[in-house]
Order: sequence, then structure tokens, then C-alpha cells
Amino acid sequence: MGKKNNADFVQEIADIDADFAGWYTDVVIKTEMVDYGPVKGTMVIRPYGYAVWENIQRQLDDRIKATGHKNTYFPMFIPYSFLSKEAEHVEGFAPEVAIVTHFGKEELSEKLVVRPTSETIICHMFAKWVQSYRDLPVLVNQWANVVRCEKTTRPFLRTSEFLWQEGHTLHATEEEAMEETLKMLGVYEEFMKNVLAIPVITGRKSENEKFAGAGATYTMEAMMLDGKSLQAGTSHYLSQNFSKAFDIKFLDKDGTLKHPYQTSWGVSTRLMGALIMAHGDKRGLALPPRVAPIQVIIVPVAAHKEGVLDKAYEIRDELLNSGVRVEIDTRDQSVGWKFNEWEMKGVPLRIEIGPRDIENGVVMTSRRDTHEKDTVSMQGLGDTVKKILDDIHENMYEKAKALLMSHIVECHDFEEFKTAIEGKNFVKAMWCGCPECEAEIKALTSATTRAMPFDQTPIGDVCVHCGKPAKHVIYFAKSY
Amino acid sequence: MGKKNNADFVQEIADIDADFAGWYTDVVIKTEMVDYGPVKGTMVIRPYGYAVWENIQRQLDDRIKATGHKNTYFPMFIPYSFLSKEAEHVEGFAPEVAIVTHFGKEELSEKLVVRPTSETIICHMFAKWVQSYRDLPVLVNQWANVVRCEKTTRPFLRTSEFLWQEGHTLHATEEEAMEETLKMLGVYEEFMKNVLAIPVITGRKSENEKFAGAGATYTMEAMMLDGKSLQAGTSHYLSQNFSKAFDIKFLDKDGTLKHPYQTSWGVSTRLMGALIMAHGDKRGLALPPRVAPIQVIIVPVAAHKEGVLDKAYEIRDELLNSGVRVEIDTRDQSVGWKFNEWEMKGVPLRIEIGPRDIENGVVMTSRRDTHEKDTVSMQGLGDTVKKILDDIHENMYEKAKALLMSHIVECHDFEEFKTAIEGKNFVKAMWCGCPECEAEIKALTSATTRAMPFDQTPIGDVCVHCGKPAKHVIYFAKSY
Repeated sequence: MGKKNNADFVQEIADIDADFAGWYTDVVIKTEMVDYGPVKGTMVIRPYGYAVWENIQRQLDDRIKATGHKNTYFPMFIPYSFLSKEAEHVEGFAPEVAIVTHFGKEELSEKLVVRPTSETIICHMFAKWVQSYRDLPVLVNQWANVVRCEKTTRPFLRTSEFLWQEGHTLHATEEEAMEETLKMLGVYEEFMKNVLAIPVITGRKSENEKFAGAGATYTMEAMMLDGKSLQAGTSHYLSQNFSKAFDIKFLDKDGTLKHPYQTSWGVSTRLMGALIMAHGDKRGLALPPRVAPIQVIIVPVAAHKEGVLDKAYEIRDELLNSGVRVEIDTRDQSVGWKFNEWEMKGVPLRIEIGPRDIENGVVMTSRRDTHEKDTVSMQGLGDTVKKILDDIHENMYEKAKALLMSHIVECHDFEEFKTAIEGKNFVKAMWCGCPECEAEIKALTSATTRAMPFDQTPIGDVCVHCGKPAKHVIYFAKSY
Repeated sequence: MGKKNNADFVQEIADIDADFAGWYTDVVIKTEMVDYGPVKGTMVIRPYGYAVWENIQRQLDDRIKATGHKNTYFPMFIPYSFLSKEAEHVEGFAPEVAIVTHFGKEELSEKLVVRPTSETIICHMFAKWVQSYRDLPVLVNQWANVVRCEKTTRPFLRTSEFLWQEGHTLHATEEEAMEETLKMLGVYEEFMKNVLAIPVITGRKSENEKFAGAGATYTMEAMMLDGKSLQAGTSHYLSQNFSKAFDIKFLDKDGTLKHPYQTSWGVSTRLMGALIMAHGDKRGLALPPRVAPIQVIIVPVAAHKEGVLDKAYEIRDELLNSGVRVEIDTRDQSVGWKFNEWEMKGVPLRIEIGPRDIENGVVMTSRRDTHEKDTVSMQGLGDTVKKILDDIHENMYEKAKALLMSHIVECHDFEEFKTAIEGKNFVKAMWCGCPECEAEIKALTSATTRAMPFDQTPIGDVCVHCGKPAKHVIYFAKSY
């Protein structure tokens, strides 16, 4: 729909170096991944974008199930009073919830909240279901839409309604709950690496940046091409905060009633923004093969010549049979136009096939990541292509990792800090732990605390800003 | 969670013959498929129920994609004014929409509707995307939650929020759109037969029963065990009603601007209710194998004896490798208790294995559908089990079909009609086509028109109720 008939297609994207934000918007809209919804801050996820999301869902869902969690569905409407039961939670979410007041013409006796997250309604149900230590652990997850009304929105990155998965678990002990919290952070990290080809920095959030109602929030932070950090997923250790607020109790083996310990963890359609801004280039999208809706595009050359189209379809079928997501572009457009369009849409591998290739029993391949072209035998093409796709994945990951590694700067004083942040880096530094100092740093540099890494080997004694004794090793960055 | 430690488990379900409604509620709640949400009319779909829904989704989604449709996601919030653009649509849906008036404390300038269905917002976007005949057909689908506030609710059957898929398509011609409408009805019918083991009656709805805004609604109606009809899915030919209201126009090959023809079609979590009420019995659920979360339950007998558990796990692994969804019940409960529980939960096949079976190289099987027990060799068990599961599917379908066929009564006068309806039948009769007559029949018998079958071979000349000249062959029934 709405295809432009223009050989210089690529030129329509804003310059990635001069205007990264414009580049992002152009890419997500012009590749038809997404469009703006009629209500401010909402988005329509179009087929090309939704197919990426389905690939994310399928592969992450497999991992969530493999770690023992079962999917469920809780209602979207939450009584307003539930929100208020956990003090930090209501403070964090009340300003941004959508409120339902009427069903048809009938005014409701209690107004309802459209879930911004589901801890409260889930805890309400857990309180009903859990009685004994035998009922623990509870390990559930749901794929759902949530609403957080935002002033400043951008497709995928920050929208009033978004799609996500939210895992919710209950455990008999603090240790088990903490183990779960970190296990799921690990699942996310592995998924980022092996599916989205994105390296992340993991660690704990500061008190100020943690989830409203959590005991501790663990995060994974990914570096975007502009040096900013994107919080790609979080795993919360909720302690007993919600289980006390919602009076969830179980009779333990020792015969006493206890409140269970809880976790929650989620990733969302933000991941779409992450993969676009981690891998794209001036030509547009570059999709990691394991989530690309089309992994291989076949472009017949001199398609009118006898035998070309037949052979192209034959190759298409062979790749399909090998489990490759492949399409063939037989549209009435120039080969150059097609090359540009599929590059912009980020298809990992292009295969060209023309009369001379058929004579020689070969096809031409062109990689989206390196722009390397190669001549490949038609013999065993399915296996060759799968190997190339794996190689593209590895290369994209290594490239992203090299970017991250070369843009982490250890800073020991605030001048270094400011220079490093302006230079589009993540700053690794010592920090005093005071919220006031954190707020000052943000006010002066726009950088926020991102994560306290698990490796807390000190790189100094004093806070990089205020000079007071340092408590934590922490990463700072500008962020999405 | 919340398991009852009670050997007479099955006795807790209401009598299916004396109290079908009570039986249904007991079954859905006690098998932990579903629970009531805190907001009136909402439901929590618990892991056992949601796993059935995921199996429905996966298999129906494959069919929707195989017929050329792509998945998308449109925002849940719709400006109230959109609803009013199509006159019949607003009349049908306005009384039951949930209305959002605030984001946090901020009152919205235009109130929003939580989608009861997405024609309006989708047409708003289509108008932006579609310009030329080259952009047609548009073939999209979404899996989403929708809200229709209902006074009288029952889990799965009628809830204020439910999950569904809604397909939306645009076509250049009336013929193409009608072909699509009937094609998707056919996809649904095939899915009902081959996945849910439920036969359906298909046909067109009366004007009174059609979708608000449709040109024509086609339906599939399934017979429940109590003789009532359940509308299991609908496919709407929308004509140009919405494309005119939303000013969707395309430049056709002949150089003129035209409004495209449209369809929409959907099935929902109602299907969960359908399969429960089509296949259950006094012992509880009987799940069709292709959607059962657990297809085979292995119950070790004399599990404390040496080698029994090892062999049971070995068999479990063999079945898993054959692609069977299998679990093993090693809980500290009596074998009888386990049998009762898994029967209530509707697991299609039970495998028992004890010391003597191991000596003889066999296992005992027990079918949920026929209660037949058999002795089966451990050799090639994976293939044997898959064959039995297919056979269970066929048998469940044939049983449901026999029920339907034996409960369709052709009626030629209204006395016959009333007797047949009271006897828990579907009535096939001639009808005048007048809404007034339809309303009178409903008032007198509680039966409504269900479907005008595609085969319109007359079985009489006059309307079964009013005696005026008949226009249609039609099915009547009480319904959910």
C-alpha cells in the first residue's frame, strides 16, 4: 500500500548523522513498520512491523515457558482503589493512567483504571488462590496491551498504549524471589544477544529510577547508534511490598502464616525501537535475521528472459523448504529500485539471479550488514543461506558490541564526565548514592544513572560529581 | 494452586442433566480454566484455560496467514466521534462501550471509546493508506482484547472484556468482497471441524441479527449439549457502508475514484465456551486433543516399586519426542483421586503404568471420550498414541455431529415448532422474513433466528408462524 514509484527512494530518509531523530521517524514510517494512530500518542503497528514483533514474541515466549512459566490473561480494567493500596505504586502511576468512568450512558460507581501494569489486579487474584506453601511458587506471564499516557511520544519508544509481556511470580522465600529476578534478567540478556544481536549492560537501578513499588529493579541497557541508552527490559524484585498491601498469605511448612516474596519482569514493543536504533544505517533498517519478517529477498535480473523466473521460484521453494523466510520480488520496477527498497526495509540477504547465473549454476548474494557481494553455488543453497544468516547475526552482534565497548568511558572527575557524555558515550564512574547528587548531574548534563553493574570493583574512592565518599560503581548516559 | 484434597472430586460438579448452567460454572471454575475478575463481567483466564486459547490461536492464525492475511495491531482507544460516522454501527454499539474521559487528572477534550470492534479506527487508517487499485486487496487481521459492557455475563460466553481475532479486508469489487466473506466463513467451519471437533450450521443472519453496520452477516452456529445454539463466529460482508462513511477511495483501472468493498470476520474466547458445552459430560471437561494443553497424562501405579517411575519418565520422554503434549502425575495422592481429577480436567488420554505392565512391556490406556481401556505395547508407543488421539478427535466430532443431526427438526406449523424448541432442538422451518414475526416468535418461545442456510430448497410455502408466504428456509433455536 502506498508504495512510492521513485528510483531514489533512499534519499528520502533524513541523514542519520545530522538528524538521528528524523532518521528514526523516517525509517519507521517509510518502511511501513508503524503509523500514528488518531489518538495522540498511539501507534498502529503495520504488517511489516508486527511480523517483527511476532518473531520477538515467539522466541521470547519459548524462553519464558522453558523456565517454567505459564501464560495467563488478567482483565485490563482495574478498580481505581487497587492502585492506592501500594503507596509508591499509586504515586508513580496515578498521573498517567487512563480512566474509565462510564459503560455506555451508565456512570460507574467506582471509576476504573486501564492497566498501566498488572501487579495490583494480579495480587488481588493471588490472594484468593494462594493458601499454602504447596501453592508456591506461582510462575505466570501474560502478553497484553498496557496504557501509560505520555506527553511526549515516539513510535515504539514511548507510546500511550504499547504491547508487552509481564511476568509475575510469588515465592516462599526472599532468596528464591531474588534468584527468579536475576534469572529472568539473564533470560532477557541472552535473548537480546542471540535473537536481536544487541549487547546490553545489566545491573541494578538507583532508588530514583526503580519501578514504583519495587524493592529493587534490575535493568538491561542497550546503546543506540547515537550513544544514548535505551532501557530494553527490567526485572523487579518486589519483596513483600505488594503481598502485604494485598494481604497475600500462605501457611508455611513451619505452620505459620507468611507473606510471599514477589517478582515481576517485562519487555515491550520498545524492543522494536531498540533494534532499529542499534543496527540501522544511512540506507534505513538493518534487521537481525532471527526477527526479520523476510530473511532473504530474491530479485530476478532480466526476468523477462526465458527460464529466469522459473529458476527464481525454484530457488524460493528450496529456501522455504529449508525453513528460510524468503520472498521473491516480481514487481514491475527496475532492479535498482528494488535493491534500494529492500535495503531500506532491512532485509538481511539479497539474492540476485539472472540468465548468466543460471548458466553457471550460481546466484549472487548481497549482505545487508557488510554490503559484501558473493557468488554462491545453487548446490546446497539452503544450507549456505542459513550459514550466511547466522554469520550476519554474529557480525551484527559483534559490530554493536564493538560500538558499546568503544563508547564506555571511565571518568574520575566531572569535567571528564561532561566531555564523555557530550561525546555520546556511556560513563562508568563512582557515585555517592545520593538522590540529590543524581538530580544535579541530570540537571547539568541530561545524563541519568542507568545501572549499577554486578561487578562492583571500585574504580575510585569518591563520587564523580560531589566528591563525597563513593558507594557504587554506576553507568551514566543520556537515554530514551 | 488451591487443589482440593478429596477423593470424590467429581461429585462436586453440579448435575449436568438437572442443572446445565451450574455444571458449566462448576467446570470452568473448578478445572481452573477461568476465574471472575474484580470488575463485574470480567474474567481471568488461568493457565489451564489460556493454554487451550493459545492452541486455538496458533492453529487458527496459521489458517488466517495461509489465506494471505497479515497480522497488525491497531490502537484500542477510538475517538468517540468515529463511532457515529456509521449510523447503524453507533446505534448498535454506543450503549455498551466503555468510555475514557481522563488521562491522569487531565480531562480529555474528546472522550475515547475502548474498542468494541475495530472497523471505525481501521477504516480511518485505510483512508490514509489506500489510493489506487494497486493497493487492493488489503488483507489484515489482529488478535486483541475488546470491550462490550454486558449486564448478564458468564465466563467465556459473555464477558465485558474478551479476546478475539478480527480480520478486516478491502476489495475493489463487490464480488471479491463477497468471495472473501464466504471464504473466511469456510476457514472457520473447517477449523471448527478439524481442531475443535464441532460441527456447525452455516448461513446468513436475518436483518435483525446481523452486525451493526454490515450489508450481510454470515454465521456458524454450534449446538450445545442442552440443545441451545452458540454463535461461534461471524463473517460480515460490509459492502461500502464503512468505506463511504470514512471516505476510503481508490483510483480504479478505469481512471475513476471508487469506494472499496469491505469485509470483517472474527472469533473469540467464546470458542472456549463452545468446546466445553459441546463435549463435556457429567465428569467434567472433555477436551478435543488438538487443543488440549495436556493430551496424555501418565499416572504411575505402585510408583514406589523399583523401576516404575523411571519407566514412566522414559515413556514421557518418548511421547514428548513424538510431539505429544504429555505430563506425568507424581503427586502424593491416590491413583483414584488422580483419575478423577484428570477426567474432570478433560485430558483426552490417560496412560497407567505399573510393575506388571513393565514386565509385560505394555501400558494401560484409558480414553476420556469412550472410557475404553486398552493394553498397548510400549513398542512404537508414540505412533500408537498419536493414532489414538486422532481417533478420539474423530469420535468426538462424530458424536457431536450425531447430536446435532438428531436434534434438527423440520417444522411446518407453530405447534410443532413450540414442541420442538421445548424438546431442545434446532428448528428448520420456512419464514416470511418479517422482523415483526421474528420478534413474536422470540416472545412466545425464546427462540431466535440463527441462520438461513446456503441450501434454500423450500420445505413449504408459508411462514411457520404467521402463515404468510414464506421467503426463507431458516433455523431457529434458543441460544447463548
